[in-house]
Amino acid sequence: MKAEDIARAAEGASNEAAHLSTDSKNEVLAVLARLIDEKRDFLFEENRKDLDRAHKEEMPASLIERLKVDAKVVDEMVAGLLDVRQLPDPVGEIVKTWRRPNGLLVGRMRIPIGVIAIIYESRPNVTIDAFSLCLKSGNVVILKGGHEASHSNAALYSLIQEACKRSRVDPAVAQLIETRDRQFLYDLLKQSDYIDLVIPRGGEGLIKSVAEQSRIPVMKHDKGVCAVFVDEHADEEMARKVCLNAKAQKPATCNAMETLLVHRAVAPRFLPGMGALLREAGVTIKGCAETAALVPGIERASERDWYEEYLDLVLSVRVVGSLDEAIEHIRTYGSEHTDAIITRDYNNAWRFLREVNSSLVLVNASTRLNDGFQLGLGAEMGISTTKLHAFGPMGLEELTITKFIAFGDGQQRT
Amino acid sequence: MKAEDIARAAEGASNEAAHLSTDSKNEVLAVLARLIDEKRDFLFEENRKDLDRAHKEEMPASLIERLKVDAKVVDEMVAGLLDVRQLPDPVGEIVKTWRRPNGLLVGRMRIPIGVIAIIYESRPNVTIDAFSLCLKSGNVVILKGGHEASHSNAALYSLIQEACKRSRVDPAVAQLIETRDRQFLYDLLKQSDYIDLVIPRGGEGLIKSVAEQSRIPVMKHDKGVCAVFVDEHADEEMARKVCLNAKAQKPATCNAMETLLVHRAVAPRFLPGMGALLREAGVTIKGCAETAALVPGIERASERDWYEEYLDLVLSVRVVGSLDEAIEHIRTYGSEHTDAIITRDYNNAWRFLREVNSSLVLVNASTRLNDGFQLGLGAEMGISTTKLHAFGPMGLEELTITKFIAFGDGQQRT
Repeated sequence: MKAEDIARAAEGASNEAAHLSTDSKNEVLAVLARLIDEKRDFLFEENRKDLDRAHKEEMPASLIERLKVDAKVVDEMVAGLLDVRQLPDPVGEIVKTWRRPNGLLVGRMRIPIGVIAIIYESRPNVTIDAFSLCLKSGNVVILKGGHEASHSNAALYSLIQEACKRSRVDPAVAQLIETRDRQFLYDLLKQSDYIDLVIPRGGEGLIKSVAEQSRIPVMKHDKGVCAVFVDEHADEEMARKVCLNAKAQKPATCNAMETLLVHRAVAPRFLPGMGALLREAGVTIKGCAETAALVPGIERASERDWYEEYLDLVLSVRVVGSLDEAIEHIRTYGSEHTDAIITRDYNNAWRFLREVNSSLVLVNASTRLNDGFQLGLGAEMGISTTKLHAFGPMGLEELTITKFIAFGDGQQRT
Repeated sequence: MKAEDIARAAEGASNEAAHLSTDSKNEVLAVLARLIDEKRDFLFEENRKDLDRAHKEEMPASLIERLKVDAKVVDEMVAGLLDVRQLPDPVGEIVKTWRRPNGLLVGRMRIPIGVIAIIYESRPNVTIDAFSLCLKSGNVVILKGGHEASHSNAALYSLIQEACKRSRVDPAVAQLIETRDRQFLYDLLKQSDYIDLVIPRGGEGLIKSVAEQSRIPVMKHDKGVCAVFVDEHADEEMARKVCLNAKAQKPATCNAMETLLVHRAVAPRFLPGMGALLREAGVTIKGCAETAALVPGIERASERDWYEEYLDLVLSVRVVGSLDEAIEHIRTYGSEHTDAIITRDYNNAWRFLREVNSSLVLVNASTRLNDGFQLGLGAEMGISTTKLHAFGPMGLEELTITKFIAFGDGQQRT
């Protein structure tokens, strides 16, 4: 099969996908949840083949960990499917209406995007998450997982196909790309007649090469160099708790804090205690000169560190002289992902909210809250760092677009 | 100056543009309106140079007409500026908020897109429209007009610069590209580090080459092959009026009707009279066999005609057997721009609204209403035929994106 054939098959199913009833979509999700639950031994078996290969190829332990499908991962996939099943169907929702002076009632109605290609690495559960969100939002999905998870993904895809068939839904609403051929992927990224959106999820290399090759709009799920600024007027007790959570609760995620900025006025009081807490949690601190003077024995941060997404128990710390300097630091070194200020000052809170243009800007809360579930979207496809169309967590609504609709009784243009 | 320098200068001004007060932006618009009004003789003079060259180069009369800046065009530019001045400033608007169970108040705040490059042809007034909408929405604009309007655009741009200076706003918020060098444009379209969005407005050739060359997201303002379907249950009197308006009120526009679809059950009653009315208005009809039998003396439509955007007093007419056939025709030959149904039937109205996924779908109203002013957006940058981000007329809101914001009191991820 050529890339164009897969893209065309996907496009061919998109009209049916767009007009599936909510009941049909929910049935597929329920059947799939049951199948995954029932066939877990089959899934473990296929996943074992991936794991064996990964061990043979001496993949890093952290990647092997992500690759693993165990009882917990299966339970989460099942729960995720039932969650998406319960979310309201966004397709056909009329978002807003307004009347024109000539009596025309104008509105906006949600419709699916069309065909979405997801290009991802490692975690096989993305196969199920991406399929369920795309199906529920009326889109056809083309799944291109990493070679390292090929057996697991093929197994999950076979269950998706089975669930569609049992629910009398065209199995072409999900396409799996199994080849490892890079040229095939590049060809796929040229199919702008058939594919409407490409979402790369993974490392910087993957995202960069997809963005460079694609002739289709790309929504990147790129890195997060997230900062917390502890303002001069911070509640220091709150700041300690939030910073510890932002750094240490799950350091390998894109919304974990990578940079701590502390106002000079509170640094002597705040940093020694905070530094001790972080070190207790196993965090390696890389600090500016002032930080080093306050938290003895730490490493010094280099210019490169301020740009770094460690994804690990490592943190850059810098003392700044003002809110302006903090905002300037975030503008220069940040990645417009997630940034927070801890303050009791009204003006500083609002200035930070207004002037930092990241996908989520928080006052007095942890950066780890940048997540579709946490923010109340119900589920997410990932966190878009592309600004157009959707910036931040992409839930079901973000997998739709709106068309204008108008109800008239003979209105004309004069 | 290299393309990269212009792009970088634009990006350098984007932070100031994003945070201009509404008063500052409105002052620039008011000063510019006054300058254009006062310096109209200067504008006429510069425009004359473009017109002289156009005559020398024997440009078609319709293009010369679009190029012309006369008293009426100046009055419209002035009125347009004052309109945009009065529209609410979208920047910083909090679109929606909701509370999470942990007390976090989450919302979405509008922010500018950043730097927008507009690539357009002919009409010099686009220079003013694009600048005013971009400024009001906090964006920096890079203007690349057609060579045929170079003197007019340079003159208008000099007034934009003057208006910014007088209002103490960095004139770098608007950049004009004066070179005719194609490679320069292609270089500009690679500046994805500095430019966030490219909007090509013009002929198919321009749009195609911009889309192919760009490494920046592109929102096309592409063609409209718009259809009106006169259903079996249409109010025929209304259908006649709406169709005449949709075709003949301004046939050179992208939202004019190009295809009339008539249900077989009403065709014998409807088409002879409709045909006569259209011909009276100077419309050349190209019909299917059944249409030709009902409206004698017309041309026969070829397969190619169904795809045609005539932009002229020409209309394709086809008799169809059902609503399904009408929808199928629109899916096959239409351009997802604007389509209308004329019907009194509840089910058919809703099916048409749901199943036709064009940027505007109307029931019992003219396709000519697909326009930012007509739909109540206040003004428009054009009509996007790209689905992602904004589909249909792009007003001030569509020139913004939203970031998530969150007001907390110490919330963490557990």
